[in-house]
Amino acid sequence: MTIGVGLIGSGYMGKTHAMAYRSAGAIMGDVPDVRLVALADATAEQASEQAAQFGFERGTGDWRDLLSDPAIDLVSVATPNSLHRDMAVAALEAGKHVWCEKPMALTLADAEAMEAAARASGRITMMGYNYVHNPAVQHARRIVASGRIGRVVHVRGWFDEDYQADPDLPWTWRARIADAGLGVLGDMGCHIVALVEAVAGPIVSVVAETQVIHETRPLPDGTGLAAVENEDVATALVTFDNGAKGSISTSRSAWGRKNRLDFEIHGTRGMILFEQERMNELRVFVNEGKRDEQGFRTILSGPDHPPFGRFVPGQGHQIGFLDLKTIEAAELLRAIASGSRPRPDFTDGLHIERVIHAIADSANAGGARREVG
Amino acid sequence: MTIGVGLIGSGYMGKTHAMAYRSAGAIMGDVPDVRLVALADATAEQASEQAAQFGFERGTGDWRDLLSDPAIDLVSVATPNSLHRDMAVAALEAGKHVWCEKPMALTLADAEAMEAAARASGRITMMGYNYVHNPAVQHARRIVASGRIGRVVHVRGWFDEDYQADPDLPWTWRARIADAGLGVLGDMGCHIVALVEAVAGPIVSVVAETQVIHETRPLPDGTGLAAVENEDVATALVTFDNGAKGSISTSRSAWGRKNRLDFEIHGTRGMILFEQERMNELRVFVNEGKRDEQGFRTILSGPDHPPFGRFVPGQGHQIGFLDLKTIEAAELLRAIASGSRPRPDFTDGLHIERVIHAIADSANAGGARREVG
Amino acid sequence: MTIGVGLIGSGYMGKTHAMAYRSAGAIMGDVPDVRLVALADATAEQASEQAAQFGFERGTGDWRDLLSDPAIDLVSVATPNSLHRDMAVAALEAGKHVWCEKPMALTLADAEAMEAAARASGRITMMGYNYVHNPAVQHARRIVASGRIGRVVHVRGWFDEDYQADPDLPWTWRARIADAGLGVLGDMGCHIVALVEAVAGPIVSVVAETQVIHETRPLPDGTGLAAVENEDVATALVTFDNGAKGSISTSRSAWGRKNRLDFEIHGTRGMILFEQERMNELRVFVNEGKRDEQGFRTILSGPDHPPFGRFVPGQGHQIGFLDLKTIEAAELLRAIASGSRPRPDFTDGLHIERVIHAIADSANAGGARREVG
Amino acid sequence: MTIGVGLIGSGYMGKTHAMAYRSAGAIMGDVPDVRLVALADATAEQASEQAAQFGFERGTGDWRDLLSDPAIDLVSVATPNSLHRDMAVAALEAGKHVWCEKPMALTLADAEAMEAAARASGRITMMGYNYVHNPAVQHARRIVASGRIGRVVHVRGWFDEDYQADPDLPWTWRARIADAGLGVLGDMGCHIVALVEAVAGPIVSVVAETQVIHETRPLPDGTGLAAVENEDVATALVTFDNGAKGSISTSRSAWGRKNRLDFEIHGTRGMILFEQERMNELRVFVNEGKRDEQGFRTILSGPDHPPFGRFVPGQGHQIGFLDLKTIEAAELLRAIASGSRPRPDFTDGLHIERVIHAIADSANAGGARREVG
Repeated sequence: MTIGVGLIGSGYMGKTHAMAYRSAGAIMGDVPDVRLVALADATAEQASEQAAQFGFERGTGDWRDLLSDPAIDLVSVATPNSLHRDMAVAALEAGKHVWCEKPMALTLADAEAMEAAARASGRITMMGYNYVHNPAVQHARRIVASGRIGRVVHVRGWFDEDYQADPDLPWTWRARIADAGLGVLGDMGCHIVALVEAVAGPIVSVVAETQVIHETRPLPDGTGLAAVENEDVATALVTFDNGAKGSISTSRSAWGRKNRLDFEIHGTRGMILFEQERMNELRVFVNEGKRDEQGFRTILSGPDHPPFGRFVPGQGHQIGFLDLKTIEAAELLRAIASGSRPRPDFTDGLHIERVIHAIADSANAGGARREVG
Repeated sequence: MTIGVGLIGSGYMGKTHAMAYRSAGAIMGDVPDVRLVALADATAEQASEQAAQFGFERGTGDWRDLLSDPAIDLVSVATPNSLHRDMAVAALEAGKHVWCEKPMALTLADAEAMEAAARASGRITMMGYNYVHNPAVQHARRIVASGRIGRVVHVRGWFDEDYQADPDLPWTWRARIADAGLGVLGDMGCHIVALVEAVAGPIVSVVAETQVIHETRPLPDGTGLAAVENEDVATALVTFDNGAKGSISTSRSAWGRKNRLDFEIHGTRGMILFEQERMNELRVFVNEGKRDEQGFRTILSGPDHPPFGRFVPGQGHQIGFLDLKTIEAAELLRAIASGSRPRPDFTDGLHIERVIHAIADSANAGGARREVG
Repeated sequence: MTIGVGLIGSGYMGKTHAMAYRSAGAIMGDVPDVRLVALADATAEQASEQAAQFGFERGTGDWRDLLSDPAIDLVSVATPNSLHRDMAVAALEAGKHVWCEKPMALTLADAEAMEAAARASGRITMMGYNYVHNPAVQHARRIVASGRIGRVVHVRGWFDEDYQADPDLPWTWRARIADAGLGVLGDMGCHIVALVEAVAGPIVSVVAETQVIHETRPLPDGTGLAAVENEDVATALVTFDNGAKGSISTSRSAWGRKNRLDFEIHGTRGMILFEQERMNELRVFVNEGKRDEQGFRTILSGPDHPPFGRFVPGQGHQIGFLDLKTIEAAELLRAIASGSRPRPDFTDGLHIERVIHAIADSANAGGARREVG
Repeated sequence: MTIGVGLIGSGYMGKTHAMAYRSAGAIMGDVPDVRLVALADATAEQASEQAAQFGFERGTGDWRDLLSDPAIDLVSVATPNSLHRDMAVAALEAGKHVWCEKPMALTLADAEAMEAAARASGRITMMGYNYVHNPAVQHARRIVASGRIGRVVHVRGWFDEDYQADPDLPWTWRARIADAGLGVLGDMGCHIVALVEAVAGPIVSVVAETQVIHETRPLPDGTGLAAVENEDVATALVTFDNGAKGSISTSRSAWGRKNRLDFEIHGTRGMILFEQERMNELRVFVNEGKRDEQGFRTILSGPDHPPFGRFVPGQGHQIGFLDLKTIEAAELLRAIASGSRPRPDFTDGLHIERVIHAIADSANAGGARREVG
C-alpha cells in the first residue's frame, strides 16, 4: 500500500511533517510506503522551492489543488491556526485523511465543525500533539495503566517558555483575539492538557485565572503602543474524570524556560516525574523494597521503551524533537492502512480545545468553576 | 547581656530549639549570651532527663513553672499545636518573649488571640519558620528586592512529603479536626506560604481546592476504620498584594517527596528557582549577555550569602536543617537585645494563618474566591 | 550537483548512514543532492530488502559491485571493523570518496594503510565520530577557541557503558584480539579521544592501565569457558600538545551507564562541562561578575548553536543521536562539493588510533609512558 | 564519664572542633560528657576571646599549658600543618588522646613519628577526615560491604576547588614546599584518598602526574614574582589491595568547583555515585528488576542512614558540614570511653600520607610506578 501525501504549509511545522514522512518508513520498516505528491504554500514559487527541498513531486500556490488530486490520500495542515478549519473541513469533504497541527482552531465553534466533518467523512484524522508520542511519556502511561503507582490521585502539569517574556518585543497579530484566538492557552496550554490527559485521562472541570503580563507592546512602525488582548499566563485547578485533582499552569513569559513541559503523577503507591527539557528521562518512585534504598529512579529511554529502538539501539543515546514527529507519522500511516483510530485524533483534539476554552471562560468569570462540555 | 531561656517541649522541635540556643553564640560571635534555665515537659522525669541532655539547668513537669521564674526572659513553645495558644498567651502575659513553633494554633481565633496578646505585651515574638532563614532563600529575597529580575509577575510554590501517603498507616488524632485543626495546610502549607510571602510579599486572595486521599484509616486497635477529616492535599490560585498571581500546592501524600519545599519567582527580567531538597543551591536566570551563553546559573551557597560564612568559610560546603534554626535563634536573640522586630513574628504568623484558613474556606465553598482578611 | 552513494553494511550503523543521507538535504537546504544508488550486504536478498527500506535503487551481495559502478561517487563503510581496511582502501583506489565508521581498523598498520590510501587518492574521507558534531560540543569548541575560559590547562574525559558488565553474558568473537583487536579502547575509547581532541587539541603522550573485568565468559554452546583477551576498562594520564594534562577513562563494564561520554575542560578563566546523556546541555563557568551570583550556567542547545536551528527553531527542544549523523553527512557532502577537508577525516582518525594504541601499549608495558607517534 | 578537652587553634577548623564538642552530647544523647577546659592560641588575648565565644573555661597563649593540665584528657590539634607533629607527639607523650586535623604533617617522616608516638602511647587518636562520616558515605560503605553491587572492580575519585584558580592571587607561604609541604595533595588529595579507601579499601600502588598551573604569583609587596613550588593539580592511576583499579584526580585550580569531592564505585552487579556538593544524596544502580524500570536511584539521606536521625527525623531534610564534625566527635568520644579504635586514626592517617606522597614521588619521577609502603 502506498499513501499519497499533500502538505499545506512549509514553515517549520510543515518541515517537520515533511521530514516525518521521509523518515517513517526507513526508520520503522513496518509502515506503508509514502508518496510525496504535492506541497502547497502561499505562492507557487515558494511552494516549488520547498517541494524540491523536501522531496515532493510538485509545488502549488493553491492548497485546493491538493483536494482535487486523486493521487493524494492524506493532507497535512501545517498553516497558521486561523486557516485550519477551512482547510481541514475541505480536505475531509474531499475524502482525504487529515493530519492537522495544534491547536485545532481559533474558536471552539471551528473545532466543533472540524470534528463534525471528521465524523461525517469517516476519514482518519490526527492532531499534531507530538510530545505525547515520546517513548518516555508512553512509558509513564503504561506504568499508570498497569497500576504500578496505584490509583492516580493528583496530577500537576506545566508548560513554560519565554518567547513573550521580553517587554520590548514588538506587537504582532498574535496578541489580537480576532486573529489569534487564545494566547498561551492556544499555543502552549493545549500541549500540557494533551499530555496529562494522555497519561491520566480526561479533565472534567476547571477553576482558573489568567494574566496579561505586558498589557501593551510597541507597534513595529514606531507609531505607539497596542494592546495585548490574550493571556500570557494561565493557571487552572483541574478535576479529572477518575476523581483525581490537580493543577495546570502555562506561561509564555517565563524567563529561562525554553520547553518546560513537565508533569507529575501522584499515585497511591508511587510517583512519576517528567521534564521535557530532558525528554529522554523519566523519574519514578514506587513504595517498595528496603526503606534505606528507596528513591526516585532516573530511567533513561532505551529500546525497552518502544519504538525508541527503531531510532537507536542503545539506551541513553537519545532521540530528539523531530523523532517524535516521525513516531506520530508512523502511527497515522499505520492507522490509515489498518482503518484503526490513531490518538489523539480530532475527537481527542476537540476535548483538549474544550478544556482550554473552559480555562479561559473560568478566568474571564473571575475564577468561577466551568465544566468541560 | 544574658538572656534566660525556658523551653516547653523536648520532642524533635524542642531539640532544635535547644541546639540552636547552644550554638548561636559560638557560631555567630555577636549574639547575646544565653542561659538555659529550665525545660518543661509532660513529666518531671522526662523533663529532667532531657534537660540534662540539652544542658538546661533544671527540668519540670509543669510548664507554668517557667512563667514564674524571673531568670527566664524568653520561652520557646515547641509543643503540639493545640497547646500553642494557652502557653504563648500565658508566657506573654507573664512578660516573657516567645518563640513559637508553627503553625500558630488550631484555629484562626486562637492565632488572633496570640497575636493580640503579643501586641498587648510589647514583648518580642518569633514564629518558627526556619526555612525562611536559609541564606539561599534570603539571597532570592535580595535579588527580588534589588529589581535584578524585574517586576515579580508570577509565583509558584509547592511543599510535598509522603508521610501520609501509605494507605495502610493507622488512624491518629492528627486526622481529626477537633484535635489537629487543618491537615496538610497547617502542617506544611504554612511553610510554603511563609516562604513565598518572604520573597514576594503578602497574598491577598485565594481560590482553592483540597483533597482527602485516604478517606478512612484503620484504627490502631484493629476495631475498624475511622474517618480522615482534614485535607491531605491543597492547591490554591493566589493573588499577591503587588498584583502578581500564582499558585501554591501542598501534599502529605506525595510518594518519594521528602521535603519538596520549592518555589519559582517569575520576573519581567529573570527567574529564580529554589528546591529545599537541594537547599544550598539557587538557580537564577537573568536576561542579559549573549544569547548563546544564556542559561540558568546554579549558585552554591557560600560566604557571599550571609550568614553562611559563620558556619563554613567555603562555598559549596553546605549548611543543614539545624543550622537554619541557629540562624533563627540568632535573629531572635539579637532582636531581643536591640528591641527590634524579628521576622516572621506573630503578626506575620497570623497573616500566614489567614492565608491557609482562606484556602481551606475557599475549598470548602467549592472553590469560591476568598479574600485574606 | 548530485552525489551518488553506495552503502556497505545495513546493520544499525548502516541505517544511520542511510537516514543521514535521506535527511541531510531536506534538513539543511544547502547540501548537494544525493542519489542512493546501491546498498551492499552479506547476501543479495538481505541487501535488496534493506535497499527497499532505506530507499536505495538496488541491493547487492557483493560490495565490490559498488566500486565499479560509475554512478557511485561516495562509499559508506559501515561493516564490522575487521573489514574496514580492505573496503576503504579498495574504494579509494577505485576513486570513490569514503565515509567510514569508527574505529578505523583492527590494527594500527591497517589504519596507516587506510590513511596512506586516502592521501594517495586525493579523495575526501570522513570518520564516523558523530558525537563531535553535536552543536553543544561545537559550542564548547568555540568557547575554548575564543579564549573565553582562558588557557586550557587540564582536561578529563570518560566514556562508560554497561554492555559487557554482566558476568553471565556469553563469550563472543569480540573478546578475541585476532578478530576484534582492542576491546573498549577500540569500541568506545576512540570516541572520547575524538571528543577531547576536537575541543582541546592533540594528545602527545600517555601513561595508562587497563583491566579485564571478567577474565572468562561461558561459551554459547555450553562447552565451557573462553578467555576474554581484550580490555574492559582503560584509564590513561594524557598530555596535550599545548601542554595541558589530564586523564581519560573508559569502561564497557560500568553498570547503569548507558552513554556516559562526558568531559571537563579546565581553563585559567573558566570551566566547561559536558555530559552526553544530556547531550542538549552545556555547563559553563566563567570567573566574572559579582561573586554572589557566580555559578555554572546550564546552556540549553538552541538556534544560537548552529546548525541546531535547522532541526528545531526552539531552544530546549532537543536534537537526538540520529541528528548528529545528519550533521556529519551534511558536512561530508558539502566538503565533497567544495573540495574542502571535513573533520575528522582519515588523517584525524589515524591520530585517534595512535592514541588508543599508545594507551594499550603503555598498559601492556605496566604503565610506561608512550609518545603518540 | 566526663572527658576534659583542650583545643589548640581557634581558626576555622578549631571552631568546628569546638562546635562539635558542644553539640555531640546534646545531639546524640549517648556520648560521654565533655568539659571544655582550655583553648590555646597564638596569644593569650586571642585565646581568651575565643575561649569565651566557644565556651571553654580558659584561654592560654601557650599550647604546652594544656599538656600539663590533668583536667585535660583529649587534645584537639587544629593548627597550621607544620605544627601538627610537635603538638600531637607532645600531647601523646603527655598521655593525652589526640584529635588532629588533616593532613597529618608536612613530611612523611613527621607523619611516621606521629603514628609511632600514638602506638607507643596507647592513647586514642583520630584524624579529621570529616567527609568520611557522612551518613551517605557510610551507606555507600555498607552497600559495598554487603556485596549488593558485587565485587568492586573500578573506583574513581575527584576533589576539585577553585581557591587557587585565579592567576592574580598573590603568592603566599602555601606555595613554598619548605613551609607547606605538598600542594593540593596535602590540602585536598588526602580527603579523596580517605574517602575512597574508606569505601573500597587500601590503595597499594600509584602512577601519577602533577601540574603547577600558575608557575609564579605576584609577591604581596609588589616587588615581583615568586615561584609556586608545589602542585596545583595531581592525577593518579591507582591499584587497590583487592585488585580493583581506578584513578584519583584533584585540583585547587578548577574554576567553578567549590567542593567537588566525588566518587564512583564500579561493582560487578552495580554502581554507586556520590557528589559532595549534594552531600545528602547517594545514587545507586543495581542490576535487578525489569529492564524497562532500571535506572540510578537517588537516595536522600534520612533516619534510615544513621546517625542522620539524631540531627533531623525527616528524610530529605539535610545535614551540613558542621554536622559531619559532630558525628566525628561523637565517634571519638565513644571510642575514648570504650577503649575501642575510631577510624580513621593515626594509623589510617599515615597510610593516607603514604598514598599522597607516593603520588608526588611518582609524578616527580615522570610517572614511574610507586608502591605505597
